[in-house]
Amino acid sequence: MQINDSAKYEKIFKKQIQITEEKIQSVFTGIKPSSLYEPCAYIINGGGKRLRPFLVIISAKAAGSSFNKARNAALAVELLHNFTLAHDDIMDNADKRRGRPTAHIKYDENTAILAGDNLLAYAYKYLLNDCKDNDKQVISEITRGLIEVCEGQALDKEFETRKDVSIEEYKVMIYKKTAALAESCCAIGALIAGADVKVKKALSSFGKNIGMAFQIQDDLLDISADEAEFGKMLGGDLMEGKKTYLFLKALEKAEGSDRVDLLKVIENKGIKKSEIKKYKKIYEKLGVFEDAQKEILEYTKKAISGLKVISSIEDKNQLIWLANYLIKRSK
Amino acid sequence: MQINDSAKYEKIFKKQIQITEEKIQSVFTGIKPSSLYEPCAYIINGGGKRLRPFLVIISAKAAGSSFNKARNAALAVELLHNFTLAHDDIMDNADKRRGRPTAHIKYDENTAILAGDNLLAYAYKYLLNDCKDNDKQVISEITRGLIEVCEGQALDKEFETRKDVSIEEYKVMIYKKTAALAESCCAIGALIAGADVKVKKALSSFGKNIGMAFQIQDDLLDISADEAEFGKMLGGDLMEGKKTYLFLKALEKAEGSDRVDLLKVIENKGIKKSEIKKYKKIYEKLGVFEDAQKEILEYTKKAISGLKVISSIEDKNQLIWLANYLIKRSK
Repeated sequence: MQINDSAKYEKIFKKQIQITEEKIQSVFTGIKPSSLYEPCAYIINGGGKRLRPFLVIISAKAAGSSFNKARNAALAVELLHNFTLAHDDIMDNADKRRGRPTAHIKYDENTAILAGDNLLAYAYKYLLNDCKDNDKQVISEITRGLIEVCEGQALDKEFETRKDVSIEEYKVMIYKKTAALAESCCAIGALIAGADVKVKKALSSFGKNIGMAFQIQDDLLDISADEAEFGKMLGGDLMEGKKTYLFLKALEKAEGSDRVDLLKVIENKGIKKSEIKKYKKIYEKLGVFEDAQKEILEYTKKAISGLKVISSIEDKNQLIWLANYLIKRSK
Repeated sequence: MQINDSAKYEKIFKKQIQITEEKIQSVFTGIKPSSLYEPCAYIINGGGKRLRPFLVIISAKAAGSSFNKARNAALAVELLHNFTLAHDDIMDNADKRRGRPTAHIKYDENTAILAGDNLLAYAYKYLLNDCKDNDKQVISEITRGLIEVCEGQALDKEFETRKDVSIEEYKVMIYKKTAALAESCCAIGALIAGADVKVKKALSSFGKNIGMAFQIQDDLLDISADEAEFGKMLGGDLMEGKKTYLFLKALEKAEGSDRVDLLKVIENKGIKKSEIKKYKKIYEKLGVFEDAQKEILEYTKKAISGLKVISSIEDKNQLIWLANYLIKRSK
């Protein structure tokens, strides 16, 4: 699965991210009323990895078209993603995102709700710019992804108060909340390129499976990353009592006092900062870090396994490089 | 402009509203997770006039198709409308709508935000069901309407704190907040029917202009309706200090102590219940009820004036009947 020419693919990736970033910066420039468009610009100009737009354009290219044919669609998925962030941050009472105040803190809750709504509207507006003959399929794909995201957020909120969440249920939730949109990104790129069913299926599966790997790795990094590289405090999920892959896997395996300790996290809806070390040791003892790594690898393998239908070796390698790059990320 | 066979058109209208209502009741039946779909169902099952869906289906019929060809599109605009209501109710701190607790009161704010988002997603999902060859135009129309609604809501919120809103600015705001979506409804119906440019333009103009008339009449009814028929207390807009057509027109015309009294409404962001009578007298004295009625009539005439391109006399009469019916409404 390793790619020899890794530096080459990283360079292409970074250049494309930069082009996307420049386009994002200009989406809401000079539009009125500013009470709506300033917050919209604030939300989307907060940085981020811009992975979803890259999934769209690389899928378009891998399906026989070019990066440039799906630029608007790439913006569209990033606008949609930022709509979910703005609304999720309200629901999660999050004060900060990427080192900046969240929109509802910077402005107010009403402004953040409305700006989020408008970001979603603009997602459709931009997507339509890249639609040709199969616009119905393209619009269906983003709409399907959007509904999954809403359902995923609802499940995530449900899980906060439930005590008996299974790993299977967790996987359904992260599929809906994260992987489904990654799947849609790849499907949209493929559709815009006029891909046949096989290629579209392979790319969709790539998006879905790296989405699953991505989310489990997010859970893993939150407790085991290099703190300096991670850029924020470790153990935040445990402090919030979040039912992550690691936590649910630990609960599944634990017995005796470990189990009692883990159940306390649910009872008390989180732990104190001073207790993080103790829980990290329980995770280590139970081997859940290895379990998570195994899952991440399996999803990544599954993502790559379908790519044999991609005819361009360069594009296939770019996709494989991306999957590996995401596994190695430190934040 | 009067229609002889008024009873016949009312019967058709009521029957179609009933069919729409039955379809609405079943949109979210049996879908999981219930933490998302129960609130969605609650929001859309709260009644309402269901005028927007009727605009879609009557436009489809008037453009040469049938009511049945645009049923899903009709549901779509009602879903979109209810998304705006759910989010607006949060922004406006509204506890009740149509005699029931609003969604964020019945559930909580997070639930209402997410349910609103999902209603919007379903609007696109349903709209796609009625799209054929010109799906791009249809999706563009609803997206344009959606962006106008977001901008209109932003302007409405801006106006709350501004002291110098003009009648022209007010008209831009109500166009965006109300009339643009009515315009989209008619355009969507026309597009689904495969209407030519002339017919689509006439129907869009019908929707837009009755939308303008509708909103000014809403302002008028709020202070001058028959209280028993209106179903809620009169003068609510004055108590909230809303910059309605009547208020802005009065401010434009008033001099001396009347002007001082009107400026107090802005200063104090509303008036006491006991003061409503006094302000109603100022409105009467300045003749702003007549001004509003004149505007409503003018917009209604404008709506009807383009309908000569509709070839079916029956459909044209149905549209004229509707415009007249809306003028005569008491709530």
